[in-house]
Amino acid sequence: MTWEAAMRTAIELAHNGPATGVNPRVGCVILDADGVTLAEGWHRGVGTAHAEVDALSKLPEGGARGATAVVTLEPCNHTGHTGPCSEALIAAGIGRVVYAASDPGHMSGGGAARLREAGVDVTGGVLVSEVEAFLDDWLTAARLGRPYITVKWASSLDGRIAALDGTSTWITGAAARQRVHEQREASDAIIVGTGTVLADDPSLTARGDAGELMARQPAPVVVGTRAIPKDAAVFRHPHPVIFEGTHDVHEVVRDLRARGFRRVYVEGGPTLASAFVAAGLVDEFAIYLAPTLLGGNRLALGDIGISTIGEQLKLRILSVDQLGSDLLIRAVPLRSEAAQRPGDVAQRPSDTAQQTEGD
Amino acid sequence: MTWEAAMRTAIELAHNGPATGVNPRVGCVILDADGVTLAEGWHRGVGTAHAEVDALSKLPEGGARGATAVVTLEPCNHTGHTGPCSEALIAAGIGRVVYAASDPGHMSGGGAARLREAGVDVTGGVLVSEVEAFLDDWLTAARLGRPYITVKWASSLDGRIAALDGTSTWITGAAARQRVHEQREASDAIIVGTGTVLADDPSLTARGDAGELMARQPAPVVVGTRAIPKDAAVFRHPHPVIFEGTHDVHEVVRDLRARGFRRVYVEGGPTLASAFVAAGLVDEFAIYLAPTLLGGNRLALGDIGISTIGEQLKLRILSVDQLGSDLLIRAVPLRSEAAQRPGDVAQRPSDTAQQTEGD
Repeated sequence: MTWEAAMRTAIELAHNGPATGVNPRVGCVILDADGVTLAEGWHRGVGTAHAEVDALSKLPEGGARGATAVVTLEPCNHTGHTGPCSEALIAAGIGRVVYAASDPGHMSGGGAARLREAGVDVTGGVLVSEVEAFLDDWLTAARLGRPYITVKWASSLDGRIAALDGTSTWITGAAARQRVHEQREASDAIIVGTGTVLADDPSLTARGDAGELMARQPAPVVVGTRAIPKDAAVFRHPHPVIFEGTHDVHEVVRDLRARGFRRVYVEGGPTLASAFVAAGLVDEFAIYLAPTLLGGNRLALGDIGISTIGEQLKLRILSVDQLGSDLLIRAVPLRSEAAQRPGDVAQRPSDTAQQTEGD
Repeated sequence: MTWEAAMRTAIELAHNGPATGVNPRVGCVILDADGVTLAEGWHRGVGTAHAEVDALSKLPEGGARGATAVVTLEPCNHTGHTGPCSEALIAAGIGRVVYAASDPGHMSGGGAARLREAGVDVTGGVLVSEVEAFLDDWLTAARLGRPYITVKWASSLDGRIAALDGTSTWITGAAARQRVHEQREASDAIIVGTGTVLADDPSLTARGDAGELMARQPAPVVVGTRAIPKDAAVFRHPHPVIFEGTHDVHEVVRDLRARGFRRVYVEGGPTLASAFVAAGLVDEFAIYLAPTLLGGNRLALGDIGISTIGEQLKLRILSVDQLGSDLLIRAVPLRSEAAQRPGDVAQRPSDTAQQTEGD
């Protein structure tokens, strides 16, 4: 079996692992010198053996000596729930490691260097595009050191989310609302403030056209210190409500990271959205603009810590889509362009490349 | 000469008239029964003979009896500075009137009916598309009974036109600013409030890439009751400043109409823009959105008289253009969809038809 063929098998093996959680899905195939498969392994989630160790465990003592380990992700170099895979591979006498994607983790990265240092032949980048596409969310969260955070709001063209008296029903149309549900479904968690729960009593579920629950439901997260009613709709969510009893969004993000969330969707209200913006904790904006004007003082964003034009938060527009009669503007902060986004992984033809790009 | 050929000549004659002022540019050709041209005429502006009367004046008494008058606009039925053309044609014994566009004016319309009533053969709609395109601005203003009003602002994606401290330089980029200058050049007047003059000291000129004055300059109009400094930039405008010493935008619009303005461009600030919106005196919005966030309280619109969501001012988006990294959203109020817009004249392939349409 060639390295590429073995890597395809390793990718298949990786799919056996759980899609959520703090650890990535990884597969490993161990080949002898003739390219014959000696063992296969994959990672089953936090606290269990990593893919390489899982594969090694299927061989007798010394059975991996001089063999080639083909693994979807650069072997980790970190002692967490389990020991570093780099050391396990070295100890097993593996002669060569072939991997696809590099591990961008601050703590877990460095495995390739450690292996080379120990005299193991190391080749990275085999089928890297396929694996990066597969690990997109995890790689992004690993690069950021926290979940990828999208802040969403829906406003009038003059930036209002409601009329003076607070009424806001049907600002955006059906197509835009359905897109929101799709974005919810693609998220691990939806985050709202207690104010939004008290004002709007949202269900925080991802629903289809007919109101039916979608297959995948984001975890509902409520941020703030105000009490919410026992009969709030959020308590009927399929997942238990996660309460973050703080106004410190850094603290919230740390907790969400610890829970293994890779992609979270901040849905309001203005106080919470402004806090994320002011803290620099936004990777993407999903701004729905309805073709309407409202005036008044109910704004999508309030104080975001900017007092003079030189401090403006410049964005880059990724796409402008017309959804029914509404617009969806997706944008990213210019200052975090260095951090890669999902869908923008290097060398992979991404869906965003087909969309309107700002310049 | 056929009617169509005569109409083309009439259109050429109309071009001799002045492009601005309250009256339309009209041309007229009088043909005998064999299609031979007896006389030509055109309108030279307010207080002078209308095209039909100008042509008739070139014929001897009785010279037009039984002849055909081919005229670009339905003959007027109204006594203003001059008498009604319908009566002049009847008195001259004209046998047939062929015209292109109908006169939508509340006072001047009805000429065709009057002519038919007097036994004259009347045919309308000959080369109507060409003439409606030529008279676009005038027809629109005639239908509205006032100038076509575009309200423009440039804001951040969260609806702010400046940072908290009032600074706003370079919110939008060069391409967007150049488009503003083109929109200014296409307008008869630019309207700002005294507050904007005091805060920004704008020149209210239409300028090219290099800052040079464009060929056509809109009249500068300043609305409000506050005094402005004698050395304000607006006083260096090629046209004299028109002061509207009132806060009543209806009064302003009546004056602009009386001055013959057909297309005006309201450029701010928020107080004036909000007053036009609240008064229902906006035909089109030109909303420039810069990819930036500002927060704070410097909004493009303030109070527009909407207190609950049912009162929202719904718009229809005509087009969304990317200009450099900015967006230009053109939109019209849904409630005034009945009133035709410039560029949307019936049966004419209009430029807006090529742009993104909301649905």
